[in-house]
Amino acid sequence: MGVVREKVAVGQVGGPTAVINSSLFGFLEESLPIYEVYGILNGLQGLAQDRMVPLKESLVADTSRVCAMPGAWLGAGRWPAQTDDFEKYVANLKSRNIHYLALIGGNGTMWTCLQLEDAAERLDYELSVVGIPKTVDNDLEEMDHAPGFGSAARFVAASVRDSGKDLEAMRNFEAVRILETMGRNVGWLALSGGYLKRKQKDPPHLVYVPERGFDKKQFLDAVKETHEAFGYTLVVVSEGLLSGVAGDHLQDPVLGGVSQELARWVKDELGLATRGELLGMGQRSFSLAVSRQDRDEAWELGKAAAKALYSSGGFTLAVQRTSSYPHDYRIERVPFERVAGKERSLPSEWLLEPEAIHEEFQRWLAPLIGEDLKPYPDSLQEK
Amino acid sequence: MGVVREKVAVGQVGGPTAVINSSLFGFLEESLPIYEVYGILNGLQGLAQDRMVPLKESLVADTSRVCAMPGAWLGAGRWPAQTDDFEKYVANLKSRNIHYLALIGGNGTMWTCLQLEDAAERLDYELSVVGIPKTVDNDLEEMDHAPGFGSAARFVAASVRDSGKDLEAMRNFEAVRILETMGRNVGWLALSGGYLKRKQKDPPHLVYVPERGFDKKQFLDAVKETHEAFGYTLVVVSEGLLSGVAGDHLQDPVLGGVSQELARWVKDELGLATRGELLGMGQRSFSLAVSRQDRDEAWELGKAAAKALYSSGGFTLAVQRTSSYPHDYRIERVPFERVAGKERSLPSEWLLEPEAIHEEFQRWLAPLIGEDLKPYPDSLQEK
Repeated sequence: MGVVREKVAVGQVGGPTAVINSSLFGFLEESLPIYEVYGILNGLQGLAQDRMVPLKESLVADTSRVCAMPGAWLGAGRWPAQTDDFEKYVANLKSRNIHYLALIGGNGTMWTCLQLEDAAERLDYELSVVGIPKTVDNDLEEMDHAPGFGSAARFVAASVRDSGKDLEAMRNFEAVRILETMGRNVGWLALSGGYLKRKQKDPPHLVYVPERGFDKKQFLDAVKETHEAFGYTLVVVSEGLLSGVAGDHLQDPVLGGVSQELARWVKDELGLATRGELLGMGQRSFSLAVSRQDRDEAWELGKAAAKALYSSGGFTLAVQRTSSYPHDYRIERVPFERVAGKERSLPSEWLLEPEAIHEEFQRWLAPLIGEDLKPYPDSLQEK
Repeated sequence: MGVVREKVAVGQVGGPTAVINSSLFGFLEESLPIYEVYGILNGLQGLAQDRMVPLKESLVADTSRVCAMPGAWLGAGRWPAQTDDFEKYVANLKSRNIHYLALIGGNGTMWTCLQLEDAAERLDYELSVVGIPKTVDNDLEEMDHAPGFGSAARFVAASVRDSGKDLEAMRNFEAVRILETMGRNVGWLALSGGYLKRKQKDPPHLVYVPERGFDKKQFLDAVKETHEAFGYTLVVVSEGLLSGVAGDHLQDPVLGGVSQELARWVKDELGLATRGELLGMGQRSFSLAVSRQDRDEAWELGKAAAKALYSSGGFTLAVQRTSSYPHDYRIERVPFERVAGKERSLPSEWLLEPEAIHEEFQRWLAPLIGEDLKPYPDSLQEK
């Protein structure tokens, strides 16, 4: 190659996570000394509008501070790509003579990667594409888990534990609290709300996920029963539980509302003081809840992508667990076809009744959330 | 006194904070070796229904774990007391021969303390009452600040910083985000959302507090202007900004809704994709955002109350700042009359335009929030 360095472009696509910048900077640490690196601004929008900026090593001197930062250093966001846009994306890369591309994103982004490779082939342009997974929902197929989920799960698990103590203390005033997590079609985050549940009386008393059918009568009966048994009821639900309520996320950028709907039912039909609350954007951004393991893995996958990119493309890197006690894993290459546009649901063996959380799920989750997060002692108060 | 120890009762009243258990256990550490201590269950409800339990030293062996716990170890909650209930409360204390009472609570609780002393005097019963302040709103008069606020402010400041980065990254999809803090009548928490703002372009771009008048047209113009200038707009509002929307907190335990109302206006009148989001119960409970200074002060005030109680009553303990750089303070006694039922607004000199945060306020807040919380570096993306 001589003194002319190969060019590589990197972008952050879709909704941010609390650790997506770690993946970017892991990638940059590895690639900046070797490649001429371009940052794609605002994900697919930058590819579409040819907005890419050369990244100098001096720009990323502040690595550790940026890694601790949520959002997306390059900008991310959603951009509605049409199938015939991909050749334009490739043309933009070609105009800069960029043959290597890394995209940090979810299952939709992996589908985009596949389309980009196809478009490049049609245009007879050599393009090597590697994916770096990110998600808060943990809905990527063919991997144990993906960066972003651990921190979101940690936020949810701590919120449910803490909000549970708060509600228990306030139960002469507020009887039922319904916390709504992210998760349009899958219940990984909602179920993570049960990470610290040990006994039946511990919150969350009920967890509802999209993978299981939902029955209004069962729900109301269960709320009544748990309220009578424990003096208060904490419920966790996925935002996508009732798809009619949640709406289409591409039509309306602002999801959320299931918890309000369920709270209305409880108030109207059981007459109990009830609060529906979204756990909100903190799930994908709250820096004080970031899981160290999650951040480290995000960084590692970014580095691994930069290393892999030069030899070949056509796959996303992925974390595969090799041991649970102690936690160990290897980083694997998964062809885009096996991830693209697919959605990974909770395994059926972890789908118990709304009242119960599978211990095996809790053990699986522990290293991702961080074992420092523990259940609280009982309060003195009894029902 | 001989071997018979004097009896003291302690209770947690109103809504919990993330550090209210620290005040309780500071109090218990000091009082258990000296007094026979009764825990009042669920605040005023326990006083009304004579539900008190003797606290043994063995019960509180797990101090550090309980102190790290939100909610209220004894139970708290709201209980609508009528003026003529107070003699009944005193009678319940009298039936157990309890002459010393400590209540951890806010300005309403300080009013209750005053009523209890009056009722005891009418009944010719010797009763010494001491208050330990707690709040998330920071609305207690005659003190620099009160326990619970620092942790809530830390949660809000970190949430605004983090959510701001998240929104900046998503601004091709979501233009305006309106975050709603606690604060029925005062704006301390909402203004804390500006703790880390340094430049005009930093979020929050606009802060609205109840102390200032609110004008819909000014609000919409300001949102439009900041959105044009920075490419996205993050707004922070107090839940009590529009009292008609927020409703009466004793009628409806579930406040919140201003952010939704404001978001609707922005969507309808400016056509911008907008999310209204409540920061929610995490403000008073999220353990991972607790301020160490706040927890320490809560503990200290509890200890000081136990020490003061035996010599006299009639006052709440209070933190008074003696120095800002470095932070130092003394603990003072403030007579109930000067706090009871009053509400402390933001000082008028800290009430700037919605676009600006007073530096002096930020410096005042720093030791309460913790100086480890810092602004982030700029993102690479430009508008």
